[in-house]
Amino acid sequence: MARLQKHERLANEMVKVGIVGGTGYTGVELLRLLATHPGVELRAITSRSEAGRPVSELFESLRGHVDLVFSEPEPERLAECDLVFFATPNGTAMKMVPQLLEAGVRVIDLAADFRLRDPAVWEQWYGMPHACPELLEEAVYGLPELNREQIRTARLVANPGCYPTASALGLLPLVEAGAVDTSALLADCKSGVSGAGRGANAAMLMGEVGESFKAYAVPGHRHLPEIRQTLEWVSETPIGLTFVPHLVPMVRGIHATLYGRLNGDLDLQALYERRYQDEPFVDVMPEGSHPETRSVRGVNHCRIAVHRPQGGDMVVVLSVIDNLTKGAAGQAIQNMNLMFDLAETTGLEQVALSP
Amino acid sequence: MARLQKHERLANEMVKVGIVGGTGYTGVELLRLLATHPGVELRAITSRSEAGRPVSELFESLRGHVDLVFSEPEPERLAECDLVFFATPNGTAMKMVPQLLEAGVRVIDLAADFRLRDPAVWEQWYGMPHACPELLEEAVYGLPELNREQIRTARLVANPGCYPTASALGLLPLVEAGAVDTSALLADCKSGVSGAGRGANAAMLMGEVGESFKAYAVPGHRHLPEIRQTLEWVSETPIGLTFVPHLVPMVRGIHATLYGRLNGDLDLQALYERRYQDEPFVDVMPEGSHPETRSVRGVNHCRIAVHRPQGGDMVVVLSVIDNLTKGAAGQAIQNMNLMFDLAETTGLEQVALSP
Amino acid sequence: MARLQKHERLANEMVKVGIVGGTGYTGVELLRLLATHPGVELRAITSRSEAGRPVSELFESLRGHVDLVFSEPEPERLAECDLVFFATPNGTAMKMVPQLLEAGVRVIDLAADFRLRDPAVWEQWYGMPHACPELLEEAVYGLPELNREQIRTARLVANPGCYPTASALGLLPLVEAGAVDTSALLADCKSGVSGAGRGANAAMLMGEVGESFKAYAVPGHRHLPEIRQTLEWVSETPIGLTFVPHLVPMVRGIHATLYGRLNGDLDLQALYERRYQDEPFVDVMPEGSHPETRSVRGVNHCRIAVHRPQGGDMVVVLSVIDNLTKGAAGQAIQNMNLMFDLAETTGLEQVALSP
Amino acid sequence: MARLQKHERLANEMVKVGIVGGTGYTGVELLRLLATHPGVELRAITSRSEAGRPVSELFESLRGHVDLVFSEPEPERLAECDLVFFATPNGTAMKMVPQLLEAGVRVIDLAADFRLRDPAVWEQWYGMPHACPELLEEAVYGLPELNREQIRTARLVANPGCYPTASALGLLPLVEAGAVDTSALLADCKSGVSGAGRGANAAMLMGEVGESFKAYAVPGHRHLPEIRQTLEWVSETPIGLTFVPHLVPMVRGIHATLYGRLNGDLDLQALYERRYQDEPFVDVMPEGSHPETRSVRGVNHCRIAVHRPQGGDMVVVLSVIDNLTKGAAGQAIQNMNLMFDLAETTGLEQVALSP
Repeated sequence: MARLQKHERLANEMVKVGIVGGTGYTGVELLRLLATHPGVELRAITSRSEAGRPVSELFESLRGHVDLVFSEPEPERLAECDLVFFATPNGTAMKMVPQLLEAGVRVIDLAADFRLRDPAVWEQWYGMPHACPELLEEAVYGLPELNREQIRTARLVANPGCYPTASALGLLPLVEAGAVDTSALLADCKSGVSGAGRGANAAMLMGEVGESFKAYAVPGHRHLPEIRQTLEWVSETPIGLTFVPHLVPMVRGIHATLYGRLNGDLDLQALYERRYQDEPFVDVMPEGSHPETRSVRGVNHCRIAVHRPQGGDMVVVLSVIDNLTKGAAGQAIQNMNLMFDLAETTGLEQVALSP
Repeated sequence: MARLQKHERLANEMVKVGIVGGTGYTGVELLRLLATHPGVELRAITSRSEAGRPVSELFESLRGHVDLVFSEPEPERLAECDLVFFATPNGTAMKMVPQLLEAGVRVIDLAADFRLRDPAVWEQWYGMPHACPELLEEAVYGLPELNREQIRTARLVANPGCYPTASALGLLPLVEAGAVDTSALLADCKSGVSGAGRGANAAMLMGEVGESFKAYAVPGHRHLPEIRQTLEWVSETPIGLTFVPHLVPMVRGIHATLYGRLNGDLDLQALYERRYQDEPFVDVMPEGSHPETRSVRGVNHCRIAVHRPQGGDMVVVLSVIDNLTKGAAGQAIQNMNLMFDLAETTGLEQVALSP
Repeated sequence: MARLQKHERLANEMVKVGIVGGTGYTGVELLRLLATHPGVELRAITSRSEAGRPVSELFESLRGHVDLVFSEPEPERLAECDLVFFATPNGTAMKMVPQLLEAGVRVIDLAADFRLRDPAVWEQWYGMPHACPELLEEAVYGLPELNREQIRTARLVANPGCYPTASALGLLPLVEAGAVDTSALLADCKSGVSGAGRGANAAMLMGEVGESFKAYAVPGHRHLPEIRQTLEWVSETPIGLTFVPHLVPMVRGIHATLYGRLNGDLDLQALYERRYQDEPFVDVMPEGSHPETRSVRGVNHCRIAVHRPQGGDMVVVLSVIDNLTKGAAGQAIQNMNLMFDLAETTGLEQVALSP
Repeated sequence: MARLQKHERLANEMVKVGIVGGTGYTGVELLRLLATHPGVELRAITSRSEAGRPVSELFESLRGHVDLVFSEPEPERLAECDLVFFATPNGTAMKMVPQLLEAGVRVIDLAADFRLRDPAVWEQWYGMPHACPELLEEAVYGLPELNREQIRTARLVANPGCYPTASALGLLPLVEAGAVDTSALLADCKSGVSGAGRGANAAMLMGEVGESFKAYAVPGHRHLPEIRQTLEWVSETPIGLTFVPHLVPMVRGIHATLYGRLNGDLDLQALYERRYQDEPFVDVMPEGSHPETRSVRGVNHCRIAVHRPQGGDMVVVLSVIDNLTKGAAGQAIQNMNLMFDLAETTGLEQVALSP
């Protein structure tokens, strides 16, 4: 099987990588991280709109680091890669992935096409028919802290959403331990503006979102079923979850404030420390801490603090990530490292830029 | 009684006003609003540290609007005022207020000295003995939407905190109507940095809080007992409240995201519209709205939207104010207008600065 | 104060006003200021794209202040106005203005259509033929500090650009006095992002311009010939000017740093104070000052400081305005007040929102 | 890549490094970069105020990367180092450096103690007597693009200021080539707030500097004589320089806009490209470019563009750096690499964090 052959090759060779749709923030973040990744050879980056243009002309920060030119997304060229990242809008990857898998290429989709297991739920939330529902079951949800072993051998990884990453990492220990009433969990989440992408959108002008704060999508956001699905995998009961996202006037960062009603007494700090003791990218902070998003700016870490205000029965979990790194491109590279038997932290050892 | 005589004088005369402690953000906001208030004569503004310095030298924005010079806080001079605002740190007003009241001066304290009715609770949260606990019962909590009539005749008004204003206005209709489980209310609040004041504090440098987001005081914040007290006044049951404040990298604005579990079915939109139909400063937005903090920047309004995501049993209320205006100086002037028989909106008719 | 003027004004008739193109930042700023202007009756606001939609639905900040609905730009309806403001993109007003003038309507154009006197220069910089070059000579350049008397009687006022307002006010005293070498003036200007408008433009996303600073249009910006024209009106020599604009990661505000080589010794502070002593909206600050843009946020003032570092022959002038107020809508209303014999400061007495 | 260098480096000995005064922004930036530097062993970091506290407790971003505890600045312990960085306030290093040099330790001072060659000038601008004026002549000004060879063998390196780095790199090619009138150079510079340090200072609160822009120190800033000195080293004429710094509401980044009057015709683009063709950290951008500060965020690069607006005789150079990296800690590490025969770019290969 082609997949295994490629897999074996890795002891000696670099992973040949392609990126489809590299003109957004997820794309440039992938490029930033891959440019200094020691185990990767970047073969192709595609963009229909920018084909022929040097990548470093679009992204000044990549001058001197990335020599590639955007190309048309030609299947033949992508088929020469060991791995293709999709950094495309929702609904694009599902049209190209079957062909690539057939050609023996492994895929990590940073969009939402393969995140939900149930095609009916996917179609309800994304408002279009799914182009390859038969792959939804095979796709592995790329949260290494939950699915590390399946990721190693996956052909197709669905890279988690940014809010779902911060929320799931914050809630998993509680749900796994059966420590909270799962009928009324609550995720009050806040994101920097880069989460909305690089497309021309008047609502995301600095003149509109600078110096202001607001909630959005309170009636329903696509990350709600994704978070619920993750928690239901580990819970024995159906999950009742309220999810309210907000927009913060900053560029990067997600802060999830997570609430649950405890159904008993237990050492929360110990629970979290135990759960994540072997995780290279989850940092359980000391009791009483308040992680700040800048402490993970540009890095693949999630920092978590767990509180029980006034010793009551409400647990409050604070979970921060960089939406573009652990919430997108960094986690994708973590998944790639797992898939290609590289050390999991390879290329992800940066220190956060703070201040 | 001196108070009534002053009160009667108002048909013809301007209200003579003094400000104690005018060098902070609450002070400059009071000055901004009073400078164009048609019914007020600003007599004195005190500051021990800046005594002798023209106010407009400290606050460039007041050049051409305020001619006063900071003076020492001399009781005799303040006693000539009809009303004194305290814009001082917690624990200052309580030392001067008894004397002023005795001299027939009415007082609005923008700090926390008179906000909690129970001296033991006050001392627990503010960490010092109260200098005049006997006044706590007389002090009227200055939330006009709740206590309008008592404010009119009050000698001493405790101006509410910023988080408590946004939270109470958002939750009152639900609690008054008995519509939610009051044992598990939740206020996830977000504030701009001006809420932390103008004092030299390394933690509030732009280098520290710019481009970052974090929660703080999760174990317990002084506004928790204040919100709880307000809700308990109107509830028949004790209030269980979780309150988590966060810091937003912007200067002004508070966004309260409020959660409660509904204990029955009712028309939430109608409930809110009815509750606030006569309120000049509370704007219940249309169904499905997401108010943004900039829409109340510099004005005394609170905008509220009420949601019931996916028709479940969780109600989500979004409530925004400007922390320095409706959350401090604007509300103080609204209270002053009530106390001195001026139209309640006098001097508060500005349109928000947006963008 | 505002209140009393309103009453006086009511004895006479209100100015009937229309706005063409009210969906941008200049439009909403006009609405903010006109909503509380005591001498104006707002009759119509037009927008092809938003026709039929309530203004306050687009601009949340106007809820409760503006009841109008956007309408199609129908000439008949506009012809009922005493004054029409154009807050349209460049090239729009020139197509409608001749007809309106003929109908006896006076016009203030906030775009650039009538700012340059020479049609050839206009066409060179704006890249299109001018639709009514015969009006360029009649149009009065609406800088009251320079052209107050002509503005009073003008049918057509060309409201100055934002950079030109800040730069001209800063340089006029020097050029009028013949105090500097006019062959090598320099304007290093910095603007907040609202100057780029409310149109969907990926380059102005907060993800692009937040937390970053850059120059733009160094090879040539349309405000260069406008500033030069103004200075040449008062100079006896041709003006050599280098103009470099920059983008600041904030929403409002312009800071012009202006440089000239002194050709003799004179008391610069006295020169500036004398030049602007009767100006209601120009504030010459004390020697040694550094005005900050926030001190004019939302108000029609220009604050200026003049320096001569180390007593050398270089004069450095610091000039700040709010680009949407004195740099656009506020100045337009100042012009309107002059044109309709209202007190020049009517509706413009606000205090800057600071912090 | 970093990884491979690390292995090579391990064959030789690591440079033993100490940091004096590591609690400011320069300190944490040094730690960020040294934590992943493959040729360095961090031995000690001192702070009188934080002695005994783990570094990663003060700087959350360093959790998992730096295990050190702040210690008292004991000369004996520092004497065990090969190199000591001073990240202290001005006036501190000069008291400790002579003793360290005597002990055979090499020193890089990131403050200003050794930047000016002339003790009288130093004392005039820094307002105190110099503790070891005899070392001023020996100290090498650590701008590798000017003094690379002297740095290699220096015992004591004066790391340049942030404004001087951006300004000198932008002006050097012009001055070296004799291309401009050196009697009237102009540096209009803009800096993010981290340049002001991490000390408690009310003037740098986000409430004070957020959403505002201003110039400061126009009468005279300490970086003026430093820039002038550098330019005079390479010029045959005395330098006349006007330097005006401004504060930008962002955390990191410096943009220098530099002006000079050309005294002849020459190919400016070629001049700059030639001058910097072998420099690893100076990127001359294509003609017509406008570098943005975010493109160097967190990296040691300086990006430069050179313009000649409308083909006139004024040259405009745009030069951007990160004030904490190339403007402080990054350049210090570049100097260290030179001093210890490491590849000049070791530990400085990061890609800028953009967005």
